[in-house]
Amino acid sequence: MNVLIVHAHNEPQSFNTALKDTAVTELERGGHEVKVSDLYAMNWNPVASGADFGSRANPDYLVYALEQRHNYEAGTIADDIREEIEKVRWCDLLILNFPIYWFSEPAILKGWIDRVMISGVFYGGKRIYDRGGMRGKRAMVTFTLGGREHMFGPDAIHGEIESMLRPLLQGTLAYCGFDLLPPFVGYHVPYISPEGRAQILADYRQRLNTVERLQPLRFSSMDDFDDRLMPKREAQVL
Amino acid sequence: MNVLIVHAHNEPQSFNTALKDTAVTELERGGHEVKVSDLYAMNWNPVASGADFGSRANPDYLVYALEQRHNYEAGTIADDIREEIEKVRWCDLLILNFPIYWFSEPAILKGWIDRVMISGVFYGGKRIYDRGGMRGKRAMVTFTLGGREHMFGPDAIHGEIESMLRPLLQGTLAYCGFDLLPPFVGYHVPYISPEGRAQILADYRQRLNTVERLQPLRFSSMDDFDDRLMPKREAQVL
Repeated sequence: MNVLIVHAHNEPQSFNTALKDTAVTELERGGHEVKVSDLYAMNWNPVASGADFGSRANPDYLVYALEQRHNYEAGTIADDIREEIEKVRWCDLLILNFPIYWFSEPAILKGWIDRVMISGVFYGGKRIYDRGGMRGKRAMVTFTLGGREHMFGPDAIHGEIESMLRPLLQGTLAYCGFDLLPPFVGYHVPYISPEGRAQILADYRQRLNTVERLQPLRFSSMDDFDDRLMPKREAQVL
Repeated sequence: MNVLIVHAHNEPQSFNTALKDTAVTELERGGHEVKVSDLYAMNWNPVASGADFGSRANPDYLVYALEQRHNYEAGTIADDIREEIEKVRWCDLLILNFPIYWFSEPAILKGWIDRVMISGVFYGGKRIYDRGGMRGKRAMVTFTLGGREHMFGPDAIHGEIESMLRPLLQGTLAYCGFDLLPPFVGYHVPYISPEGRAQILADYRQRLNTVERLQPLRFSSMDDFDDRLMPKREAQVL
């Protein structure tokens, strides 16, 4: 497989960065080719703005998604965006590796999503979910957080973690058609022992060796919705 | 009331910006004082990094949240962050006004949250949810999106919109103790008629005139959880 890891941590000595390094080593040992976009090291610009476009379909009024599509097709989209798009097109597996900030990804990674995952290539019209532009590729999110496992779940204080991460899991990756693997989570990272951290890294190595055969999560299927994206009658009865 | 509107749209002529302008006019007419942080106009930096800190509790290893707290107390946090913190402390009502990008806020606003909502002031230890640092203040999110209302709901293709926005609603605003009002949503904005847009603005004016008496949404209460944030026995029986 070709694997792209997008990494977003501001401390190179962090445990989160160790997860990224572990993935590179373990995947290369498994015979895969790996590229890393280390967003802090790249000084990645996360702000979606008119400065991203060398030409304009409409110079008087900025509709960001329309200009993304227009500028990619015209070859006038900003170079940093184009390079990231080509890396995603190249990969068979996309891994997003980040610490949880406010129950989601840090802004620098949100801005990678905002700027790189463009209309036309990643999604467009009815080309979403299991008809999305990225179908046939796999994706996985790997994240660390301070909270403990018991703080997440149906009766837990923060609710279910899959639901907390729905904008990213469903609304972004599954929306574009990626076959999304279960998240890999490092809980309570700032507070655990060196042995606890070593165990997480060992678990991660094991996970990385199963990414080709793991069953993806289930999300909406376009087959269950009509042209207006209303649930079909049969689906409503269920 | 003192009202802070944090606005994040890259097109000054957008309908989203018209919602922000409507809020300023309507709230001032109602006798409230309004400040606006227009993040694109301010050229806001959304990247949480070591550059935010004029001193370091630990110069060798960056733990962003710990340095936020340390630097705020030491008076050495970046000026742009300090100014925003003081605006939030000043306000009685915080409005976040933005277009939906990937079922959440644009990166420029995510980075306002990442950098401004610091440990010690907004939350800390057990000072979360109804014991959070922002208790006594109200908050509301106002957003526009391309999707239609029927695309959101229990059986709809994207699921429920409140659940899609949980990282922001529960995981950020309610987590810090804000009394969170129901979101105000402008659906299908790029595709509707001028009359449709005028109707949304009229609905928004009406909403703005009720923000002082609207019932906040319900989230986790710390009374239902023990010192380890495990659900208390009585809560589990329910």
